Amino acid sequence: MAMDVGFLGLGGMGKAMAANLLKIGHRVRVWNRSPDAVDLLVRAGAERAATPAEAFRGDAVLSMLADDEAVRDVIVRSGALDAAPAGTLHVNMATVSAALAEEMAAAHAARGLRYLSAPVFGRTEVAQAAQLNIVVSGDARDIDRVQPLFDALGQKTWRMGEAPAAAAIVKIVGNLMIACAIEAMAEGIAVARRYDVPPAALLEMLTSTLFASPIYKNYGAIIAEERFEPAAFRLVLGLKDVRLALAAGESASVPLPFASVLRDNLVEAIAHGDGDRDWTALAKVAWRRAGLIDGEPRPDR
Amino acid sequence: MAMDVGFLGLGGMGKAMAANLLKIGHRVRVWNRSPDAVDLLVRAGAERAATPAEAFRGDAVLSMLADDEAVRDVIVRSGALDAAPAGTLHVNMATVSAALAEEMAAAHAARGLRYLSAPVFGRTEVAQAAQLNIVVSGDARDIDRVQPLFDALGQKTWRMGEAPAAAAIVKIVGNLMIACAIEAMAEGIAVARRYDVPPAALLEMLTSTLFASPIYKNYGAIIAEERFEPAAFRLVLGLKDVRLALAAGESASVPLPFASVLRDNLVEAIAHGDGDRDWTALAKVAWRRAGLIDGEPRPDR
Amino acid sequence: MAMDVGFLGLGGMGKAMAANLLKIGHRVRVWNRSPDAVDLLVRAGAERAATPAEAFRGDAVLSMLADDEAVRDVIVRSGALDAAPAGTLHVNMATVSAALAEEMAAAHAARGLRYLSAPVFGRTEVAQAAQLNIVVSGDARDIDRVQPLFDALGQKTWRMGEAPAAAAIVKIVGNLMIACAIEAMAEGIAVARRYDVPPAALLEMLTSTLFASPIYKNYGAIIAEERFEPAAFRLVLGLKDVRLALAAGESASVPLPFASVLRDNLVEAIAHGDGDRDWTALAKVAWRRAGLIDGEPRPDR
Amino acid sequence: MAMDVGFLGLGGMGKAMAANLLKIGHRVRVWNRSPDAVDLLVRAGAERAATPAEAFRGDAVLSMLADDEAVRDVIVRSGALDAAPAGTLHVNMATVSAALAEEMAAAHAARGLRYLSAPVFGRTEVAQAAQLNIVVSGDARDIDRVQPLFDALGQKTWRMGEAPAAAAIVKIVGNLMIACAIEAMAEGIAVARRYDVPPAALLEMLTSTLFASPIYKNYGAIIAEERFEPAAFRLVLGLKDVRLALAAGESASVPLPFASVLRDNLVEAIAHGDGDRDWTALAKVAWRRAGLIDGEPRPDR
Repeated sequence: MAMDVGFLGLGGMGKAMAANLLKIGHRVRVWNRSPDAVDLLVRAGAERAATPAEAFRGDAVLSMLADDEAVRDVIVRSGALDAAPAGTLHVNMATVSAALAEEMAAAHAARGLRYLSAPVFGRTEVAQAAQLNIVVSGDARDIDRVQPLFDALGQKTWRMGEAPAAAAIVKIVGNLMIACAIEAMAEGIAVARRYDVPPAALLEMLTSTLFASPIYKNYGAIIAEERFEPAAFRLVLGLKDVRLALAAGESASVPLPFASVLRDNLVEAIAHGDGDRDWTALAKVAWRRAGLIDGEPRPDR
Repeated sequence: MAMDVGFLGLGGMGKAMAANLLKIGHRVRVWNRSPDAVDLLVRAGAERAATPAEAFRGDAVLSMLADDEAVRDVIVRSGALDAAPAGTLHVNMATVSAALAEEMAAAHAARGLRYLSAPVFGRTEVAQAAQLNIVVSGDARDIDRVQPLFDALGQKTWRMGEAPAAAAIVKIVGNLMIACAIEAMAEGIAVARRYDVPPAALLEMLTSTLFASPIYKNYGAIIAEERFEPAAFRLVLGLKDVRLALAAGESASVPLPFASVLRDNLVEAIAHGDGDRDWTALAKVAWRRAGLIDGEPRPDR
Repeated sequence: MAMDVGFLGLGGMGKAMAANLLKIGHRVRVWNRSPDAVDLLVRAGAERAATPAEAFRGDAVLSMLADDEAVRDVIVRSGALDAAPAGTLHVNMATVSAALAEEMAAAHAARGLRYLSAPVFGRTEVAQAAQLNIVVSGDARDIDRVQPLFDALGQKTWRMGEAPAAAAIVKIVGNLMIACAIEAMAEGIAVARRYDVPPAALLEMLTSTLFASPIYKNYGAIIAEERFEPAAFRLVLGLKDVRLALAAGESASVPLPFASVLRDNLVEAIAHGDGDRDWTALAKVAWRRAGLIDGEPRPDR
Repeated sequence: MAMDVGFLGLGGMGKAMAANLLKIGHRVRVWNRSPDAVDLLVRAGAERAATPAEAFRGDAVLSMLADDEAVRDVIVRSGALDAAPAGTLHVNMATVSAALAEEMAAAHAARGLRYLSAPVFGRTEVAQAAQLNIVVSGDARDIDRVQPLFDALGQKTWRMGEAPAAAAIVKIVGNLMIACAIEAMAEGIAVARRYDVPPAALLEMLTSTLFASPIYKNYGAIIAEERFEPAAFRLVLGLKDVRLALAAGESASVPLPFASVLRDNLVEAIAHGDGDRDWTALAKVAWRRAGLIDGEPRPDR
């Protein structure tokens, strides 16, 4: 049964997601800060919304915006929330802070609107293939209402209870764990290289056995081959996500020593010009520290 | 074709491995510091060696000893190496330091003996099922000679070139990466718990998707269920392995910030009485730091 | 020569500083969010300003507000800046972020106003005794204009050039170094205690020789005697200052591993209920980790 | 009253100390691995000992050897201890591990000999000026017996009780705290440089006020002027001392996060060729990480 859906935010991810909703026959009203992406979707059958408020209505509104500030700008400061019909259900699918999730839930409730936190795992090509993993928290009936939309976007929906921040936290923790995996491989490869173990051989063994999972296989291959450009996910965005973890931890009085190491190492990567490379370029920090990049004089082992 | 094999070191792992060699029809001469394990193997068809030197001969000698010092004691200081027939091939299957691997290779070469470094991945039950992953480095013809023994012990042999330390390094790096995975899950769960996300739900999602690998699934389940006893691998041994990584890094001038965090956290676990629990009890450190164990007064979020 | 001075922010520090200006014969117009402190100063000869704007005029305006947000609220959002007579010179003496210093300098320049960054070192009793160390950056002639005021408040003024953020950075770095000293003593004492070296004996030796400086002597004594209450400087404010250092570092791509350790440890202290104790209570974190607080079972050394 | 003293170990420190004993009229029998230093002392009035055992007698024996292994070699394995007359009092003035101090105390006691642990603070020129700070632990009457010797060597003796390891621990903790001070200054300067605060101005302010102590003043000047050669104390020896702290902590289950950061950073310094420079060259690590050394492309602030 076709639904009437608003969609705000047509970056790489949002464009792919909105297109998948259209394909399956939903009516989609799209808004984006820059109009090019809108034109593209309109040619694919979407309706153009001139303002966020125009998109903010219908059976559900999905948003896929860049960060906390973009959410506040587009959803709240634009007036979209104030103009929304009572009962409108907004599903925020971006990676945002736990604090923003709680702030948004309260802002919607205060206006008689519904809010779901539903961030996704998967890069652009996964979004295009409608194979995202969607993590959602909020009212179970609200989730039921948009389940058909989730089914059009992803391979599976993971329900995390009612707390507005819960889904945001799962996404933040997941990204933190990915960053940890990158650093762990980077340190391991740094040692291996100094003992003349080829990184590819090391990773082939480990990612065929103990660590036979998508993250280790895919990221491990990128690291072993040093394919840091073009960026699938820019390192500065990785730092943003680690910062979300540290902020969530700090608000809840949870020390996070691995996240702190990652923060410092990502800052170091940026200091050496790798901010716009893929975030697996974090590995270069471990290698530079070990003298494996600069070619400076160093003692024999 | 049956081989004549010496086997030194009959702990949980060694016992299972020697038994598998017997099962397949090899002749096995066994030595162990305490005689109970020897008796058991003799009943299963092994021959008893009264001294390490008696076991140190035949087509190949396998050893599975506790640590660097045990290897030096049993293989060198016992006189076994000095008494060995020229050309004897010794396969050291224990987890030892990179420095010990190099030291042993030199000690064997100086006496006209052959040496392979061949540590394994897998716990006792994996050894019993002959499903170990064996990582080996050394002379390729030597490896060919003992490949039939490896085939009787494991599911696959991973060759890492000729450098004596190479296989030891792969094992050390692998264990370091496991410890990193435990810490990453521990920190993630600490945050999740403070935001009312059930650890089991968090891990089910992550280990079914991005982290769908044996380490994350098995260890994640132990952590989520807090099954830290009985220990499958004692935390003090985990600290020993992290120390091997730090030592290998230090010798090769490789800083390892994650390993340093792990060292401190494992020391903290021991300070709080968890040294003999499973090394996944490392997770309790993250939780205690966040005030999730002691029940002390703490601020609301 | 008496000057006409506005003063905004009458917490413990501000109150003492404004009183010292009055004592020396300056005319002082005071504003504070809560009126009690104003009443007190008025009884000592100050004039009452009903709004920030009323205080924001005269030969110079000094402010001593809680943090970045308080500065933005009281100075900018209140309209004080917009209402200020052209050429008014504002001296911000609070500990603020480097970014806020730059933001304020620009906001003042845009309105034809003058701005100095002049944070101070010293606690309340030092402010009362007019013995502060004042760090200042900005236009040299502006500094000359207010030097008589600085002379009435502190023992010495340290000029750090023209960059608006420079003085803020010196203050932030100074506080970071104090926190580092606390942690260093805490770790040292943790080791000492486990080897039966009395902390007081250890610190007496070190702070009479290598570390014979005010910070080590004063803070060392507090730590050795565990006098964490009442707080001279609350631990949550210490975390705020470490955060300023991390933020300054992040903006300038400077990794700060000691600051990251401090952040985690201060968060841990808060998780265990020490947020409102003196920030030297950071030492308890090192001791708790070593099992020296909880009395849990632990291995003998 | 002149004493009959054995002295083993005539490096820069030992030579200066033995000379001071001679000056004050004590009879000194000297031994050193390489004979040049012995010749020099003999010309100054000392007697030559052909073996460690020959020096190991008299009213007291002082030793100033390089490290744990040197102590074991020269004192124990050489047979000196076995040959020593009953009741001989040995004062170990080198920086050694806490474990070695306990091991030596036991080895002496088992042979009816006396042992004091008495490491010193101060570099060669301080030793020459007889201005060392001597930290001692052991039997109080034994200390009383050698107090005249300590008075000839240092400005003050600090008694730390009876535990053999106590003095060693104070020395180890002191050196750890010095390393922490270096790192704290290095991180602070890295931030300062990026905000155009001259390091010399920053340090002049801080080391004239809060941090007005010898360590901060002297080391701060070296760092600000980047005078890393010649080395007053080689960085590899600094790493050795941090390792002593980590080992003491590990044996006593004390996590030491600052020491762990220092270990990694010192390893990084060695990887970049600074192992033989002064250990203040640790500062270069912070600066390289911030992109302040390599001149690689980096983002503007």
